[in-house]
Amino acid sequence: MTIQPWEAKASIARTKRDESVARVEPPLQGLPDTLPLNSQELPKAILTSKEIEITEKYSVTELLAKLHSRELSAEEVTRAFLRRAALAHFATNCLTELLWDEAIERARYLDSLPEPVGPLHGLPISTKEHHGTKSPNGTANASYVAWIGKPQGSILLYDTLWDAGCVFFARTTQPQTIMHLETSSNIYGRTVNPYNRDLTCGGSSGGEAALIGMRGSVLGVGGDIGGSIRCPAAHTGIYGFKPTVKRVPSGGQRTHMIGKETIFSTLGPMTTDREALELFMKVALSVKPWRLDPSLTAKEWTPYKFTRPLKIAVQWWDGVVMPHPPMIRALKEVSEACKAAGMEVVDWDCESLNHRRGWEITAALYWPDGGEEVLGLLEEGGEPILPLTKFIIHEQPSVKKLDQHGLWKLCAERDAYREAYAKHWTNTGKADGKEVDVILCPPSFGAATPHEQSRYWGYTSNWNLLDYPGAVFPVTTVDPEKDKKDLDYKPKNAEDQFVYDMYTPEKYKDAPVSLQIIGRRHYDEKVIAALTEIERAMGRK
Amino acid sequence: MTIQPWEAKASIARTKRDESVARVEPPLQGLPDTLPLNSQELPKAILTSKEIEITEKYSVTELLAKLHSRELSAEEVTRAFLRRAALAHFATNCLTELLWDEAIERARYLDSLPEPVGPLHGLPISTKEHHGTKSPNGTANASYVAWIGKPQGSILLYDTLWDAGCVFFARTTQPQTIMHLETSSNIYGRTVNPYNRDLTCGGSSGGEAALIGMRGSVLGVGGDIGGSIRCPAAHTGIYGFKPTVKRVPSGGQRTHMIGKETIFSTLGPMTTDREALELFMKVALSVKPWRLDPSLTAKEWTPYKFTRPLKIAVQWWDGVVMPHPPMIRALKEVSEACKAAGMEVVDWDCESLNHRRGWEITAALYWPDGGEEVLGLLEEGGEPILPLTKFIIHEQPSVKKLDQHGLWKLCAERDAYREAYAKHWTNTGKADGKEVDVILCPPSFGAATPHEQSRYWGYTSNWNLLDYPGAVFPVTTVDPEKDKKDLDYKPKNAEDQFVYDMYTPEKYKDAPVSLQIIGRRHYDEKVIAALTEIERAMGRK
Repeated sequence: MTIQPWEAKASIARTKRDESVARVEPPLQGLPDTLPLNSQELPKAILTSKEIEITEKYSVTELLAKLHSRELSAEEVTRAFLRRAALAHFATNCLTELLWDEAIERARYLDSLPEPVGPLHGLPISTKEHHGTKSPNGTANASYVAWIGKPQGSILLYDTLWDAGCVFFARTTQPQTIMHLETSSNIYGRTVNPYNRDLTCGGSSGGEAALIGMRGSVLGVGGDIGGSIRCPAAHTGIYGFKPTVKRVPSGGQRTHMIGKETIFSTLGPMTTDREALELFMKVALSVKPWRLDPSLTAKEWTPYKFTRPLKIAVQWWDGVVMPHPPMIRALKEVSEACKAAGMEVVDWDCESLNHRRGWEITAALYWPDGGEEVLGLLEEGGEPILPLTKFIIHEQPSVKKLDQHGLWKLCAERDAYREAYAKHWTNTGKADGKEVDVILCPPSFGAATPHEQSRYWGYTSNWNLLDYPGAVFPVTTVDPEKDKKDLDYKPKNAEDQFVYDMYTPEKYKDAPVSLQIIGRRHYDEKVIAALTEIERAMGRK
Repeated sequence: MTIQPWEAKASIARTKRDESVARVEPPLQGLPDTLPLNSQELPKAILTSKEIEITEKYSVTELLAKLHSRELSAEEVTRAFLRRAALAHFATNCLTELLWDEAIERARYLDSLPEPVGPLHGLPISTKEHHGTKSPNGTANASYVAWIGKPQGSILLYDTLWDAGCVFFARTTQPQTIMHLETSSNIYGRTVNPYNRDLTCGGSSGGEAALIGMRGSVLGVGGDIGGSIRCPAAHTGIYGFKPTVKRVPSGGQRTHMIGKETIFSTLGPMTTDREALELFMKVALSVKPWRLDPSLTAKEWTPYKFTRPLKIAVQWWDGVVMPHPPMIRALKEVSEACKAAGMEVVDWDCESLNHRRGWEITAALYWPDGGEEVLGLLEEGGEPILPLTKFIIHEQPSVKKLDQHGLWKLCAERDAYREAYAKHWTNTGKADGKEVDVILCPPSFGAATPHEQSRYWGYTSNWNLLDYPGAVFPVTTVDPEKDKKDLDYKPKNAEDQFVYDMYTPEKYKDAPVSLQIIGRRHYDEKVIAALTEIERAMGRK
């Protein structure tokens, strides 16, 4: 068999990655020859009880308290997460680099200081590969073979997290083009779900999700332009938050299509804990980042307080694709809990808003050059175009190479969609003066899909099109008893049929089921506050 | 002589305009056969003393107080401004329509109500033609012959002003393409400066400026993408404010290039009074307009209070074109007053920031299609391309028809310029922790230019490129004794030579000289607060 030049190049990157993971001391002992379907029981068998304690027992806030009080040293915390991250990688293939030496060096430095340097003192933070880190001479390839070995950029947000005292310790996988809702690339292969390796971890921040879903990290940074924080967070049972665009600084990544402004991605937190979402936002905005990145909205993080019971609109479906039974059950369970807690729960009737057209607009906005730049990068690297890349570029009929006038027309249509949606929302308050506070909705049509099946983005991408902030939180897991297939359902269209046919509960063993809370544009604080209220209604802390 | 079809069509629009102005009752009596160079003395000779009282004696706030207390009726106030507007039009050619009947009907309706309807109850407001008004069946042509008779749009901002109780009473001229810093079109001809008819009123909101400069209106609405509020306000000695883009709703105008987002225009107030700037912003944002126009930043108007003496940076020149002597004197006078009031005054050294390159980027951002759509509209109307249209499209070497990749590159360059500027500003606080609060700078290289000479935009357009809010306020008038030409100055480049050669104080008899206050992006409230502090330092109320 001939090795293609791109394979040779990818192999160099993989070797570098493997060597970085092999730095783990002591090496992981007792790894099974055959990986289990569900990886959740692995850590107990491999890690020390102290490592289990550090990585499992505490919330982010509790861990930070122990780091600040010096009850735990930054070094021991960092070492525990480094080893657990290596194990998560063994189980799910989620890393592109383990920053063993530099993370420990950083942790030791922090331990040497007389006082904690900031709110994140000693906290290990994982990051999506193409973001880069503060590593000197770090590289980033953004999953493009053509970019292997290229220097990483410099992200303003990471300066802030660094100054707040964090330890960057692990870099995580993303898919080819960073535009799949799964995580597979020619360089690093496929990342799988830590609850069921036959299912995807979601994407594009799927390496983060698999890592955090294994508690190989408790706080990471993803990016989202179509669901890339929320989809993988949902599929792995963790928390994720996509802020309104231009609140968190997102510049400086190694990425394609710089200067495109039809639709923007945003960075945001992925974490094991609800409270860490707000902590992340507070830290990110505490430095008034708009003073250095003037594209940002100059708006302090201002925690929201509800003064009356929430009014929640439940989106049972989006008018295009019917969610799978576990998702519908999750919506029912949570909305019942909200009602029981005295909240007002109404339906989010969005059929008139035409989410199908919304998706067509969104796909076109992603690739106003018809995908030329990105396809050129793949060609430059000589690497094969993966099926989900074909899906998101070639198989979307609305994707076209536009001239300026075509672009303006598309942007005007986008704006009209946004305006109609805003008016619809405002009208929910017309009758009684009580406008809907947030929408409760699925973050996907179901739990994590089998590999290569993530071919309907509408449940996340609609909120990118609208630039509405959204938080994802875990609710339940697929239960074959409760979540039987509805044999009477008649699919309404080809996508609906595809999604309907995909489901049998048995495929989804142990898969987490999560929900999404959506707020109006720029009401990020309100989404976080609503998440707290709703989780409390669910009986959580 | 043959009448071209476009002339015939333009003549219909002019006739309609002339008929609307001729509705004035009683008709204006005693108009001079030959118009004086300076129109400021005309009203006294033509209007009644009551009309003079209503239109001259009160600030906007005082007028509103009298309207709210019913000491003045909306009808008498409206009639006074209608007649004065007709006179201003006679003097400067500033109107495209006088809304005689509907303004009086609206005023009578307001008078018939038991209580004032809102903060603008009974206040006549003038508007730029292409914005349209609340008129049923109103038309708008945006100065394009091709669009004569087309229906006007519906501006969300005008719904808000209307609901606050205003009376729309006059519509005002703008130049061809709405992209000159003067005001001349094939439909309505040239609007001149109410202080000196040999000089321009500025543009593109030049009709507003000429009208308000004659107190034919005390509050109007302009739009600004390169100086179109601030330049004419400066040239006519009134107040103008360009907010940060996407704070005030600007959608719904009849305009070209809808969907273009390289650089945005914004609506803003033009007025006789400083306080009315903030009143306008408060009213505009009081309804949370982002609930209907989701492109807007969701941010309440939050008046700013300084807690220490201002730190003001004076931009003596922009590194490209040296301002004329009256402008330099104005900068000196105001900065001395600020120092005397205890403020810190430093220089704004911007040569390293390269305003020249900034202008090249800006011109390219205006016309990413190479001007194709706009030139097509002129061709469709069969009308001649005016010299200042040629200047802003054909004579700018950076203007090019771009493909998507060219567009992205340009936008990335824009963003880099913005980032460098933001960092420069932030660094002003590095040494002592006291960052510059605002920049004090010229709103033009000089007072209003002789006609057709407004060929350097940098003093206003730089702040559009950066999206920094800016307020313009009157300072002095050209004084041939004090403002002698500097015969020793050696121009640095072709533009500088052009501007230098333009100046002799005699040309600028009676011309107002104004200055501009610039704040960081989204710090609109701070700019308004700084304007108040600076005017107080100047001994004003």
